[in-house]
Amino acid sequence: MVLAFSVTQTDGAARSGRLETAHGAIDTPAFMPVGTAATVKGMLPSSVRDTGAQILLGNTYHLMLRPGADRIEALGGLHNFMQWHGPILTDSGGYQVMSLKDLRKLDENGVRFRSHIDGSYHTLSPESSIRIQHQLDADITMAFDECTPFPVTSEVAADSMRLSMRWAGRSKEAFVPRDGYGLFGIVQGGVFDDLRRDSAAALVDIGFDGYAVGGLAVGEGQVEMLRVLDSTVPELPKGRPRYLMGVGKPHDLVEAVRRGIDMFDCVLPTRSGRTSQAFTRRGAINLRNARHSADPRPLDEACGCPACDGFSRAYLQHLVKAGEMLGAMLLTWHNLHYYQELMVGLRAAISAGSLEAFVADFTETQAKGDIPPI
Amino acid sequence: MVLAFSVTQTDGAARSGRLETAHGAIDTPAFMPVGTAATVKGMLPSSVRDTGAQILLGNTYHLMLRPGADRIEALGGLHNFMQWHGPILTDSGGYQVMSLKDLRKLDENGVRFRSHIDGSYHTLSPESSIRIQHQLDADITMAFDECTPFPVTSEVAADSMRLSMRWAGRSKEAFVPRDGYGLFGIVQGGVFDDLRRDSAAALVDIGFDGYAVGGLAVGEGQVEMLRVLDSTVPELPKGRPRYLMGVGKPHDLVEAVRRGIDMFDCVLPTRSGRTSQAFTRRGAINLRNARHSADPRPLDEACGCPACDGFSRAYLQHLVKAGEMLGAMLLTWHNLHYYQELMVGLRAAISAGSLEAFVADFTETQAKGDIPPI
Repeated sequence: MVLAFSVTQTDGAARSGRLETAHGAIDTPAFMPVGTAATVKGMLPSSVRDTGAQILLGNTYHLMLRPGADRIEALGGLHNFMQWHGPILTDSGGYQVMSLKDLRKLDENGVRFRSHIDGSYHTLSPESSIRIQHQLDADITMAFDECTPFPVTSEVAADSMRLSMRWAGRSKEAFVPRDGYGLFGIVQGGVFDDLRRDSAAALVDIGFDGYAVGGLAVGEGQVEMLRVLDSTVPELPKGRPRYLMGVGKPHDLVEAVRRGIDMFDCVLPTRSGRTSQAFTRRGAINLRNARHSADPRPLDEACGCPACDGFSRAYLQHLVKAGEMLGAMLLTWHNLHYYQELMVGLRAAISAGSLEAFVADFTETQAKGDIPPI
Repeated sequence: MVLAFSVTQTDGAARSGRLETAHGAIDTPAFMPVGTAATVKGMLPSSVRDTGAQILLGNTYHLMLRPGADRIEALGGLHNFMQWHGPILTDSGGYQVMSLKDLRKLDENGVRFRSHIDGSYHTLSPESSIRIQHQLDADITMAFDECTPFPVTSEVAADSMRLSMRWAGRSKEAFVPRDGYGLFGIVQGGVFDDLRRDSAAALVDIGFDGYAVGGLAVGEGQVEMLRVLDSTVPELPKGRPRYLMGVGKPHDLVEAVRRGIDMFDCVLPTRSGRTSQAFTRRGAINLRNARHSADPRPLDEACGCPACDGFSRAYLQHLVKAGEMLGAMLLTWHNLHYYQELMVGLRAAISAGSLEAFVADFTETQAKGDIPPI
């Protein structure tokens, strides 16, 4: 394998591990902040690193349109372009392209679509997606797939999954192996257990450096999502990293880690930071709520992030009400810090063999809700 | 005097000095970044400090409307509210209120106006402005004045100036002296030398801790502005700080320092940072210009700010074109850093008795224009 991965501890189905890439190592379970357009919105890369993040996700769709893969390649790749010197995983562009709906046309070869920026025509196929991800110099490249919509019939989900499996084979063919670089396949099949198992088997047959579970968190709800994980994860090779794409809320992460997931990405902590929502040990807080307007206390007195170092809830509310950038900056930082602290806690609990106690404490503390207003 | 100020060196009319306030000392000539709504837009307070800034300006008008002076006072004053632990100067609200035009009514007592946020009615007078600035805990309080419009006849300018002088007397009456806190009067009189001299004499007669020159940079142009400084500054006490309000471009600062100005504030470096403009030793740069689109070089290779540490012009252009917050954050940081470096250079040149050589080098380097495209 060109991407070394070792499971260091297990606790039930959960595992802690270490993934070695060309740009450094990642401790798993890991949460990857999303850097859509070559920036984690509102954060300097050094600040992202300060939260504890070890790997970022970049978006092929956004970057191929602006500033373009050729431009980024000429400027030394995505790491140098955005000055993030750690590992980067890029998605394949498939997910974004599918969400264009009326602006795209899909066939066996790939997807032809119009840019949401200027209406220009582009094509993504397994071959072009992998080539672009190579130009970006992604440490981890994702196979090009179709993200199956929800809800659909099992027939539609099956056709979609089988297309993704053919594209997975072509992605593997197009991928150029190099030390420290890897290619992940993506399990599809909607909410249908048999399709998920067929998809996992097809991917294992092709052989990948890691296995992602895609097509979830699209409206099926947490119960269905966890059921799909229960049937899918056991079908994936124990010695390779498992990545649950686009997930999720803190509670989703905890439950997925319990089921053996090693990697996550989600826009939730960053997007929420721009919409006045903060995640804390005691649940989510809406800073626009009147209860915070005169509150001199920090978001979470036990948090060590810059937003909790001297700034009051009253001040944070003032910033978001006034539409000040600093509000989004501080809440984004806090949320990313919270997510990374959660992953630190999960890894430590797995290593100590005390994951269930950690989960019980997490659940109890979240259920308490926010501290009462003064 | 309750606000200690010492001139440490002079070079022609220029001086370097030190102003001691309740929240720390300021080396002059000093540039004050503008923190309108209790935040320097796009910057953490610790980052503002890292640029070398020693004092901020806060806006009475904005803060009295949102979140309100009572709220800030209850939360420990503006320093604690916004977590800026250095000196703060607040304007009187007069300038903003005058710019409301159709939403305000002025009489001898003060100004009644409607909030631009919610249309609610408020009144500012010398007494209420000073009281609010005390609630904010400003180290330097500005007298309440009318910013004379431009252009106006000498009769209108004279009436306006005399009103401001009566208000200056009432401001002095309302101000509560405390160690480390001071009140500045504001010279008005438009572009009329005799009115400026009368205004300066009236203020000296009342007696202030410092003297501001107001009503400039309102459209009269640099030549007129410098002419007004030439006639006004010699009328001001040598032993007290002189503050040119709302100015300006780098070249304006250099020329005003040559004429004996000690303090400045301006939104230009921060506002420009949000509109893709960067200030450098070789003049202003518009990052949206196509010449930068593939340029791997930093804004200024001699600059030590985070925006110039690894980030290319191509990347900065990408950020501003994509509307990413990080673009505004980095350019704001760079501009504030540039302004503070300029002040460091001016202070050092005055101390070394080499200001004219510094000015000649500054002018020559600015005139070169930006480095040629690759």
